[in-house]
Amino acid sequence: MTYVLFNNEVTTREHVKIDMEDRGYNFGDGIYEVIPVYKTKTVAMEEHLQRFEESASKLEIQLPYDRNVMSTLLNELKTKNKITDGIIYVQMTRGVSPRAHLYERNATGLITGFTREMPFPVDQKQTGIQAYVTEDIRWLRCDIKTINLLGNTMVKRMATDNLCQEGIMHRNGTMTEGSSSNLFMVKDGTIYTHPATNLILNGITRQIVIELARTNGYNVVEETFTTQQLQEADEAFITSTTQEVTPIAQIHGNIEAQFAVGPVTKTLQQLYAEYINENRK
Amino acid sequence: MTYVLFNNEVTTREHVKIDMEDRGYNFGDGIYEVIPVYKTKTVAMEEHLQRFEESASKLEIQLPYDRNVMSTLLNELKTKNKITDGIIYVQMTRGVSPRAHLYERNATGLITGFTREMPFPVDQKQTGIQAYVTEDIRWLRCDIKTINLLGNTMVKRMATDNLCQEGIMHRNGTMTEGSSSNLFMVKDGTIYTHPATNLILNGITRQIVIELARTNGYNVVEETFTTQQLQEADEAFITSTTQEVTPIAQIHGNIEAQFAVGPVTKTLQQLYAEYINENRK
Repeated sequence: MTYVLFNNEVTTREHVKIDMEDRGYNFGDGIYEVIPVYKTKTVAMEEHLQRFEESASKLEIQLPYDRNVMSTLLNELKTKNKITDGIIYVQMTRGVSPRAHLYERNATGLITGFTREMPFPVDQKQTGIQAYVTEDIRWLRCDIKTINLLGNTMVKRMATDNLCQEGIMHRNGTMTEGSSSNLFMVKDGTIYTHPATNLILNGITRQIVIELARTNGYNVVEETFTTQQLQEADEAFITSTTQEVTPIAQIHGNIEAQFAVGPVTKTLQQLYAEYINENRK
Repeated sequence: MTYVLFNNEVTTREHVKIDMEDRGYNFGDGIYEVIPVYKTKTVAMEEHLQRFEESASKLEIQLPYDRNVMSTLLNELKTKNKITDGIIYVQMTRGVSPRAHLYERNATGLITGFTREMPFPVDQKQTGIQAYVTEDIRWLRCDIKTINLLGNTMVKRMATDNLCQEGIMHRNGTMTEGSSSNLFMVKDGTIYTHPATNLILNGITRQIVIELARTNGYNVVEETFTTQQLQEADEAFITSTTQEVTPIAQIHGNIEAQFAVGPVTKTLQQLYAEYINENRK
């Protein structure tokens, strides 16, 4: 039997009933997190739930319970579903109210969640992926992890249509991030990535990788870089909870480029793997 | 008893079951329309359903049935709910599939709809509204009438917090539209409104009003105007299905301005009222 989370209950799917006037369904008015599970244990649950709270705060949605309760429920969900390697997905919408653009501040969020057994990438981490470069058409609050994801899904579709595994975006020639990942480049041993502004989602894996890199002596520069600078980089990679540290082998679309899976990327992959091993809870 | 639309059934609400992995619920992956009802008859149903099809086409969602079937179902819904004056709301999401950014092109949409008895504005059309001017933070495909509406809802909240009835937006000083309306200004007898590009939703009421204005000898210029030009305008008004032609009396926020409810706005209100009377079906 497969279990899901519905508010404060770990239950079966037939007990979940989403209303047609849930604001998540009429406005995409909600937030989410994806928490990785490695060998039955979660990694960085605290960090994900902290960001969940930050997203909720930015959208002024009230959490129905605190971080400890959520953590307990998500762990129960993971255990009941016997997840070995994969993800826990959790989202919160502003709940049900007669459809109107104006939202009320005192509304308590409605939480749903599920798990998925899903192997982490192996081959792609060795050979690298093809990334499709296209315009970033998303809104100006990409710092909030909301379910308003149409821009991201359209870019993913475009990438796939061009035989690429990820879409990476630029605003007027300045690279921002991937459709479901953060983007890094390496030039002359220095690691570059877009600063954590309103134009990107400050990924948990992004933050971990930056810290690991700095702790291990790398210079990490959180500054914007252009499509042309990316084209001239020595290495490029993406980070995300499900993609970990995945090298980019080729870039297509608005620019074309090829990269070797270089020493910096390989070292960060190794450091990230060690981090995962040491931080399973 | 109140009825709703669920796929091809006019049914009661307890029969509607939205899945927690409906793409509308995880990605805001869907579209909608709001059709007005005046004295038990719809107005501009054809135009709304045509735009619905265009939105579906832009997002590559397959309609489950054609325009005639939809029109019949929406009329049945309206009649069963005994709507005199108000709206029919209809939306279509990409339906249920295991959560993944990448969407499939062959997915058939899932349709829901409801009606609401709701008086059209009277006082506001005579006295005008307060509008709050703020930055347009939305994505670059505002031409699609999608349920990715967080940017719009945030602006509506901000407007209300500032004791205004609508938020009107600008990108880098160029006025675009309202959070749920189109924006017009009048200067020296000429009517200005943002062209129907990717930066605005080409409202059905906007289109009707432009045509009525032109037919009646007004010069309508579909060109962008700045916050400063708006500040110096003779008249300003918004249009939408529910707000019809509503004058702006005062503007607050990034700029401050006051407008009389002027002769052009009043004439357009009159022409629009006549149009409604002559086009109820």
